[in-house]
Amino acid sequence: MSSRLDGRRVLVTHAHRYLGPPVVELFRAEGATVLADESELTGPDEPEELVARSGRIDVLVANLAGPPEAMPVTGMMVRPTEFTDEAVRGYIDALVWPLLRIVRATLAQMFERGSGKIVAITSATPERAIPGLSIYSAARGAQNAFLQVVGAEAAPHNVQVNAIGPAHIENNMYYTEDMLADRSVRESFEADIPAGRLGKGHEAAELALALASGASDFLAGQLIPVSGGWTT
Amino acid sequence: MSSRLDGRRVLVTHAHRYLGPPVVELFRAEGATVLADESELTGPDEPEELVARSGRIDVLVANLAGPPEAMPVTGMMVRPTEFTDEAVRGYIDALVWPLLRIVRATLAQMFERGSGKIVAITSATPERAIPGLSIYSAARGAQNAFLQVVGAEAAPHNVQVNAIGPAHIENNMYYTEDMLADRSVRESFEADIPAGRLGKGHEAAELALALASGASDFLAGQLIPVSGGWTT
Amino acid sequence: MSSRLDGRRVLVTHAHRYLGPPVVELFRAEGATVLADESELTGPDEPEELVARSGRIDVLVANLAGPPEAMPVTGMMVRPTEFTDEAVRGYIDALVWPLLRIVRATLAQMFERGSGKIVAITSATPERAIPGLSIYSAARGAQNAFLQVVGAEAAPHNVQVNAIGPAHIENNMYYTEDMLADRSVRESFEADIPAGRLGKGHEAAELALALASGASDFLAGQLIPVSGGWTT
Amino acid sequence: MSSRLDGRRVLVTHAHRYLGPPVVELFRAEGATVLADESELTGPDEPEELVARSGRIDVLVANLAGPPEAMPVTGMMVRPTEFTDEAVRGYIDALVWPLLRIVRATLAQMFERGSGKIVAITSATPERAIPGLSIYSAARGAQNAFLQVVGAEAAPHNVQVNAIGPAHIENNMYYTEDMLADRSVRESFEADIPAGRLGKGHEAAELALALASGASDFLAGQLIPVSGGWTT
Repeated sequence: MSSRLDGRRVLVTHAHRYLGPPVVELFRAEGATVLADESELTGPDEPEELVARSGRIDVLVANLAGPPEAMPVTGMMVRPTEFTDEAVRGYIDALVWPLLRIVRATLAQMFERGSGKIVAITSATPERAIPGLSIYSAARGAQNAFLQVVGAEAAPHNVQVNAIGPAHIENNMYYTEDMLADRSVRESFEADIPAGRLGKGHEAAELALALASGASDFLAGQLIPVSGGWTT
Repeated sequence: MSSRLDGRRVLVTHAHRYLGPPVVELFRAEGATVLADESELTGPDEPEELVARSGRIDVLVANLAGPPEAMPVTGMMVRPTEFTDEAVRGYIDALVWPLLRIVRATLAQMFERGSGKIVAITSATPERAIPGLSIYSAARGAQNAFLQVVGAEAAPHNVQVNAIGPAHIENNMYYTEDMLADRSVRESFEADIPAGRLGKGHEAAELALALASGASDFLAGQLIPVSGGWTT
Repeated sequence: MSSRLDGRRVLVTHAHRYLGPPVVELFRAEGATVLADESELTGPDEPEELVARSGRIDVLVANLAGPPEAMPVTGMMVRPTEFTDEAVRGYIDALVWPLLRIVRATLAQMFERGSGKIVAITSATPERAIPGLSIYSAARGAQNAFLQVVGAEAAPHNVQVNAIGPAHIENNMYYTEDMLADRSVRESFEADIPAGRLGKGHEAAELALALASGASDFLAGQLIPVSGGWTT
Repeated sequence: MSSRLDGRRVLVTHAHRYLGPPVVELFRAEGATVLADESELTGPDEPEELVARSGRIDVLVANLAGPPEAMPVTGMMVRPTEFTDEAVRGYIDALVWPLLRIVRATLAQMFERGSGKIVAITSATPERAIPGLSIYSAARGAQNAFLQVVGAEAAPHNVQVNAIGPAHIENNMYYTEDMLADRSVRESFEADIPAGRLGKGHEAAELALALASGASDFLAGQLIPVSGGWTT
């Protein structure tokens, strides 16, 4: 039995959504003590309070998806002349603010200890245009750009901040079970993916595990797309 | 005398700031009718109202910099454990909201006519980490990701949306005259730039002109860094 | 009438192929003296001899395509278990060696004068995988990586070296007239291009013109894809 | 004790050079049967013969560095007006040909079995210009572009082809012991690396291990720089 995270305390946000469930399962199987948090984190003080009550965080998995009312992906599509300010605010509130605030709070304790790892689970969409997703991509682009700089800033403190950028990975936010069960929907996605199939949550979780352990020791601010070759 | 923009109506935002002045000067010299707008565009309805009263816009130069109180670049630097929510909000309000809203409003008339060009002047910083600029980079990253998607969406309407990403270009927002006159400050910048010097505003304006005319006819959602090779 | 290249001496290689014809036409219309060279440039000394007999070269357009016997694109497709050493050698000989040698020879005179511009016409394929084109992409990748470094090296000499990376642009090497006339072939390409159409040669030539004149004054080693948004 | 490669047969090329030694050590510690090959692989048939006599290869680590006579990095530096054809040929022969040939030969058996992993150890230099390294970067650029396409082609066969791109990692090819022991040399490198230090071979080996095991199951043609944030 493997135990790559033995003795590590790991905080996973939005643990019930997106890639939270496979990450929690894999990280526990690898011996981690996982704090699987399911709060929305949209309140201005929520992220800091969560960090404060979590004790020592060796690894933060900043997994964020939302807002729930906009999901799945078919509901997120909008023309560039028709998106509403409310929709924009929804993505900024669900994706940008929680990430910035929880990274800020977690880094404080990691810098103090001189060690720690942050793995953000963002998206590969800012790497390649998907018509209809301009607003979503803007929010994910803010996340990715923020993490690139913070990764450079954190590296001299022996804290590794990196990200994985999923696209075309089965998950409970961007797809519904009906969509995944519909052969024609599935084929329309698969035609675009070099691997010829959608990815599984545990495949992305394995990459997150790599970044949460030794594979990221000399990475800083790296975004790694995980998309079956859809983007590289 | 050159007249590459003869008869074109061009709206330039934040015309008194950042790369506004050299763009206005060059575009006028090329025969354009330039609407040089100097409003902040931070009010929710300001961008739409500006577009409404501008009449036909053949070219939008979405030049945005700010917020003014955070400038110059030395005042923008902050540690990733210490930035404030107010600072984040400042950048989102000055850079992200105005861009999204003015692009949305302008595209509506351009789609109707089946032609038009948008040149956004954003930043190359999301392409390469500058420690201290995590929040600024997040806002610029949101801009760049948004434009990439909108570029793809607008292309079939014969509307070209692209961006230039300045870095290390002399301008009145990120540098003060004192900084530019100080030899040691200048040298600290120049050491990092393959070209061995800071760029001039009119050099970036020439690239903006290219994207505002024939050179962008088959570009869609492209970001072109203009940084003397600092990033490519 | 426009005259953006008045008095400039421009050398265009493979002038009868790929984007040579539209570049020659546009650059002449802009007042340049164009040396339209049609030699293969595969002999080890050919590039240097061409430069030697060309006199002053203000602008080099390093347009290279080939080898002719492998064209069009349907003939270039090969499985990664089946390409031959001969095919590899063909692409290296047609694309890599001529570029390296002619850039080397041209830079010598440009460095001496302290001015000059090189615009390479390579390909966007190294930016996004096209199954079947591994060998072709390797040769184009060598070109792009070489130019990025040379661009940085040349910039302090006031010599601007940059590249455009065409993809999905009509030309006489990668497409045949039959392919372009066949509606289903055309549609299979177009489905992949955000702009919804193939590009025209003169559209790429306009971008080359921008890089051959003021728009590249503060660019160094930049590759600009021109592909209707297929890659950005 | 960990055993992430238990029962896996791994072929490592140039096993005595570059990142070969730390990869061999780590992969053996993880239970792999490692074939540590030390041949130059510059003969046209060498790669295929090596694959033929290696039996089943579950994982190929295509680690290539050279040519030995050009190393270390200080000996590789050359101006863009002065590199020789011999130098170019040296890099193509040492880096490009062996990679193409050994990947071609290995994929044949992996496609037949419907499984396998290839991890190439190339370089991050094509991602960011280092003056003096134009020729070296061209060869590494050819490798990276080739692997991106092959990764897409191999993915539907359940074969994952990916790469790590080291930069600023201690190794026995690009640095000498004297260079690494010289404080001023070391500091000149470190000033450029966000992490503030050179990387260790075993840190890159850990990333190679991730790509040789579960972390790459939904990656295809991905290049991951490992450079302490020097490039991302």
